[in-house]
Amino acid sequence: MPDLRKDPIVGRWVIIATDRAKRPHDFAREKERSTTATVFDPFLAGNESATPSEILAYREAGTHRDKPGWRVRVVPNKFPALQVEGQLSKRGDGIYDLMNGIGAHEVIIECPHYEESMARLTLDNIREVIWVYRDRLVDLKKDRRLVHGLVFKNKGALAGATIDHSHSQLIVTPVVPINVWEEMEGALGFYNYRGRCIFCDMVQQELATGSRIVLDLPNFVVFCPFASRFPFETWILPKQHSSHFENIQRQQVEELGLVLKTVLCKLELALDDPPYNYIIHTAPFDTQELQHYHWHIEIMPRLTRVAGFEWGSGFYINPVLPEQAAAFLRDTDIDPARMV
Amino acid sequence: MPDLRKDPIVGRWVIIATDRAKRPHDFAREKERSTTATVFDPFLAGNESATPSEILAYREAGTHRDKPGWRVRVVPNKFPALQVEGQLSKRGDGIYDLMNGIGAHEVIIECPHYEESMARLTLDNIREVIWVYRDRLVDLKKDRRLVHGLVFKNKGALAGATIDHSHSQLIVTPVVPINVWEEMEGALGFYNYRGRCIFCDMVQQELATGSRIVLDLPNFVVFCPFASRFPFETWILPKQHSSHFENIQRQQVEELGLVLKTVLCKLELALDDPPYNYIIHTAPFDTQELQHYHWHIEIMPRLTRVAGFEWGSGFYINPVLPEQAAAFLRDTDIDPARMV
Repeated sequence: MPDLRKDPIVGRWVIIATDRAKRPHDFAREKERSTTATVFDPFLAGNESATPSEILAYREAGTHRDKPGWRVRVVPNKFPALQVEGQLSKRGDGIYDLMNGIGAHEVIIECPHYEESMARLTLDNIREVIWVYRDRLVDLKKDRRLVHGLVFKNKGALAGATIDHSHSQLIVTPVVPINVWEEMEGALGFYNYRGRCIFCDMVQQELATGSRIVLDLPNFVVFCPFASRFPFETWILPKQHSSHFENIQRQQVEELGLVLKTVLCKLELALDDPPYNYIIHTAPFDTQELQHYHWHIEIMPRLTRVAGFEWGSGFYINPVLPEQAAAFLRDTDIDPARMV
Repeated sequence: MPDLRKDPIVGRWVIIATDRAKRPHDFAREKERSTTATVFDPFLAGNESATPSEILAYREAGTHRDKPGWRVRVVPNKFPALQVEGQLSKRGDGIYDLMNGIGAHEVIIECPHYEESMARLTLDNIREVIWVYRDRLVDLKKDRRLVHGLVFKNKGALAGATIDHSHSQLIVTPVVPINVWEEMEGALGFYNYRGRCIFCDMVQQELATGSRIVLDLPNFVVFCPFASRFPFETWILPKQHSSHFENIQRQQVEELGLVLKTVLCKLELALDDPPYNYIIHTAPFDTQELQHYHWHIEIMPRLTRVAGFEWGSGFYINPVLPEQAAAFLRDTDIDPARMV
């Protein structure tokens, strides 16, 4: 059972998951291994037995669980950071706090064929991935022990991916992650002071200014944020205020599929297939619709290395003007033949 | 002039330093370049003209500025993230805040000969590096525009180093970095509630428990923290309460040299010369001695990759028990011949 341990100074939680682990000397040896591409693809249709049994799959009528015929498939992570079974058993140890590592860690396999790039999936395929994100969050929030779900994608080894086949992950935790908490607190502070959602204000100012806009569609706006931490950091925000991603509406899913595909195609073309992470920022499970918080997606190409200064300070050094990155992405044209 | 821009939601500052930069298409090309070792070493004695003119050097009597004869040498970073000249010019832009990128970015060249590993420098050499850290902070805090100094080291390309010759860096900022702010706030909260310094409490509990202790000397204690984010994360704390590193006493410098060398030797031996960062956590310039804050050094070997989940949540997954890491480091014996 993994431990969840809390840093007593800043309140950050850490998962100590020794099941995923390595003995100390394994680290010494690791760097000698070359990073060759995986020969066997455990996420390919037909290889279902290589993963734990599926939790959810969108599949063709008449096909069977853990057999081919699926279009998008969700399985537990084979090396989960958290596990579903058990009690939280919150406890103290002097000045320290800890609990059992209860939660969920799932993998969303985005397509049955081998494809590394989500940008090359069809629009319908991407929309189904978005629906799967929603379905899993709606299901997991029924578990009262769990309070937050984080959907994210690691694309490319430099962004932390260990399997090349296009996939995303979902980690559901029994405590609100500190970054989510700080974002919620910051947004609440603004709301208490100004009486408005800060994200709605950002959308308004970005649309008025225009210089950081990448894409402007009826339901979504895409821009490079004013204080981008990373070169070509790109955010996708729904124009209509909503705090919980899982309350997304059908017409929004339709458009978000197009938006996500377009933005990922632009990043791929502009930066020659960069490693990247994206993260869906959404409100905790145990809150109703919030006036001060606004769900959104943050896409972070991993082009620069984060070093000691960033770790120590939380201060990021970004060598590219967000306005320049946005202009470059705006001007990157996509072959219409790709947009199917 | 770089921009300092503030994220309006969480209050994080970002340095947009386009002078260091690259055009968008440079990123596309970068990954094709192989990471060959630098042939020319700009930090070698005799190559002084390859760096900006020195700010400080500990040198042999009769030798001259920007000429050989130095033992430790400080120069401005050739590609500074912040610059000393100019006005802050704090200003707003709608909901956004920004100011000019005023500050200092210095490089501490730790030895005149080619050596990649600080652990292989002599004890006297390491002590002089610590004195240089102190001297630079004492000097820079006279500038009223500047409020915080962050001393850090990037060792190895995976930890962000671009030059192999052993060196550290110092970035001094006109605002308190968000991570420092959060650490101070967390420690203040504990102090207000319990009336004690949380770091002093940690030292006490760690010494009483013993399982996470790596080294216990009269003035300093070294342990793997209870909620370690990274495998083999190791902290060095002075036993006597003190909030500002630059107020370090002579006898502490003597012992800290020994502690730093011992710990770095142990990490090198145990993990086969891992990439790592270390960071000196110290209170902002514009405060007197604080009862609630306690300076310390955090060493973070870079053995695991930080991916989307960590970025999104601030939740870290650590595959090694801190107790196991500490035991392994405790049991790693160093050849006494190295400890000179």
